[in-house]
Amino acid sequence: MDAKVNLADALATFDEPFQPRIVGTMNDYKLMVAKTKGEFVWHTHPDTDDFFFVVKGTLTIQLRERDVVLGPGELFVVPRGVEHCPRSDDGAEILLIEPQGTVNTGDADTGELTAPERRL
Amino acid sequence: MDAKVNLADALATFDEPFQPRIVGTMNDYKLMVAKTKGEFVWHTHPDTDDFFFVVKGTLTIQLRERDVVLGPGELFVVPRGVEHCPRSDDGAEILLIEPQGTVNTGDADTGELTAPERRL
Repeated sequence: MDAKVNLADALATFDEPFQPRIVGTMNDYKLMVAKTKGEFVWHTHPDTDDFFFVVKGTLTIQLRERDVVLGPGELFVVPRGVEHCPRSDDGAEILLIEPQGTVNTGDADTGELTAPERRL
Repeated sequence: MDAKVNLADALATFDEPFQPRIVGTMNDYKLMVAKTKGEFVWHTHPDTDDFFFVVKGTLTIQLRERDVVLGPGELFVVPRGVEHCPRSDDGAEILLIEPQGTVNTGDADTGELTAPERRL
């Protein structure tokens, strides 16, 4: 990474929800920005924790037994193996951190929402 | 990690600069909040990249050949092995991510600024 990343500027370059853009790396992890709108899909990452940080708006991380509601400046890490489904009725802008190679839909049997690893 | 973390709330619980507090983990990484004020120390992490995100204020990551100036909502990753010295004349509040066990002063020969790994 040669340059700093302004998250708001990076998020202003695209509109599609649930299509993360890689903005940098840290060791073997990818740093991504994404927009969310509506409900994603229930899924699990068996081999990694999953880092969410909200830049703008409200993101609800639905877990099977409770909801974690995140506003701007708030972060949550979904532990590996824990089923979750992000939802954002009014839209949110977020920073995601996951190991490179992690698929956004985890173990879910869906082709439609599965996004490629794409740099901004 | 069972609970979400509000970075501003976490940062409001202490004042000492350059004394990071661990607020969560992601796999074998520690998520830390810290305040910065003044100049830290020139150091290198030979084995890991170093993630900085500014919540409030301005943080300058001095590199030997240039400065990277970060404001709120901006992040930068210092590549492993690259000498750097954070500086913040007017103070800043930041999120740091490093592998657990990483020493804040890296390879620098200083006892005074070396902080213990401490949970909030």
